[in-house]
Amino acid sequence: MKRRDVIKMMGASLLIGGGLFASKAVRAKEEKAPPLPWPYKKLDPEKVAERAYLGYYKGACCYGAFDSIVGSAQELLGYPYTMLPTELFVFGQGGVADVASLCGALLGAAAAVFLFTGGLEKETREKSYALIQDLFNFYEQEALPKYVPKNPKVNVEIKRSAARSPLCHVSVTRWCKVTGYKAFSKERSERCGRLTADCALYALKLIESHVAGQFKQAYLLSAEVKRCRTCHDKGGTLEDSRGMMDCSMCHFTGKKAKHP
Amino acid sequence: MKRRDVIKMMGASLLIGGGLFASKAVRAKEEKAPPLPWPYKKLDPEKVAERAYLGYYKGACCYGAFDSIVGSAQELLGYPYTMLPTELFVFGQGGVADVASLCGALLGAAAAVFLFTGGLEKETREKSYALIQDLFNFYEQEALPKYVPKNPKVNVEIKRSAARSPLCHVSVTRWCKVTGYKAFSKERSERCGRLTADCALYALKLIESHVAGQFKQAYLLSAEVKRCRTCHDKGGTLEDSRGMMDCSMCHFTGKKAKHP
Repeated sequence: MKRRDVIKMMGASLLIGGGLFASKAVRAKEEKAPPLPWPYKKLDPEKVAERAYLGYYKGACCYGAFDSIVGSAQELLGYPYTMLPTELFVFGQGGVADVASLCGALLGAAAAVFLFTGGLEKETREKSYALIQDLFNFYEQEALPKYVPKNPKVNVEIKRSAARSPLCHVSVTRWCKVTGYKAFSKERSERCGRLTADCALYALKLIESHVAGQFKQAYLLSAEVKRCRTCHDKGGTLEDSRGMMDCSMCHFTGKKAKHP
Repeated sequence: MKRRDVIKMMGASLLIGGGLFASKAVRAKEEKAPPLPWPYKKLDPEKVAERAYLGYYKGACCYGAFDSIVGSAQELLGYPYTMLPTELFVFGQGGVADVASLCGALLGAAAAVFLFTGGLEKETREKSYALIQDLFNFYEQEALPKYVPKNPKVNVEIKRSAARSPLCHVSVTRWCKVTGYKAFSKERSERCGRLTADCALYALKLIESHVAGQFKQAYLLSAEVKRCRTCHDKGGTLEDSRGMMDCSMCHFTGKKAKHP
């Protein structure tokens, strides 16, 4: 709330006498969320990871990832951070509403990165996108999950796999193939809970490196993807597509392996 | 802000004299966003569509779709709606940070649907997911864009195509193939601006049908996808994947057309 609003409110209270009931009426209707990026204050990575893991079991992957960072900031910094309902990100469960498109943990973590590093303005926006692109490459290339919770809900060894795609169903299927577990097994849930913590941790690292002015891309697009983009992406002779997803997983498997 | 907080604040102001500067210190740090779903009040579809279209040119697809509904609600209902920074959804531009994964317009529209219909609680959550799944099927199956702005930024006829996928790059490539335009042409931007309005409009329709207790799924999964899910999804003999994306676009094209 701005100073002038407080003045308005107190003035109104005095004017109408016993004016407490007027508080709602005179509240500055125009009070708004501060513009992005929101100031970041150092969070404890261990607590964030644990909160992400437990958040997965409460509100699924996307909520777990987003709430672990933003919810922790809410606890530390209070209002107005607390006015952002982290519950909104429950929508991203299982690749958005269980559709299994974009991995929810990746989605929630990306949104959290943007809150603390992004904004409408072109330069700010693009700097934040570079962080998020690194997060996507991390997700595609790293063998996950790495995180091991203190008190696992499912206390078995969870093997790792590299998703090679940001998509929920691809990531799940690849993990199922590596481990032999089924897609709706409790072990797969546990894997996704731990992976939610991995995404939150890496997002936090990105936010902190950005705030410190020390961000350097750690996960690069493969030479193969770069080659695809030369023709198909911006400025290419075809320019009939776009993006930075790993092309190989969908376009170069099985009988499609030979490029025309 | 709650009554007791106003009392606290005014008390503190009196105590310390000229205490306007104390307003932040005494503000209730525990003030929180209301739980989901947030009450919906009838919005004007024409205004929402126009706002989505213009929002696309301001903060891209995901922002345009989310802000068209939530920003309109902010204008109508004020605080605390105004405390949710719609700018956050700029992160979803071009399939999230230009990665071209999940279409940003679909993503932003899905989040808006959840804000007014969803929540943490299992039953609420799943009812909202059913709406979002319908939104995904609409996106995949309908020939878009349908929306024609009053004052188009690019004033040419924009042909329609069915994306058959919720993914940004697939949607763009299919449209490029149908129209012959390049992926980074101003016509393609215009197409995505109009499609942003389409997604916002359908999301609004879903919210309103839900609020009126009259939602009925309008876009169904194809028989083909249902067949895939019989073996690969929950309870299937393989159960090695999950989801409701249209399988055919990636799995049954070209030489992979023959299922093993």
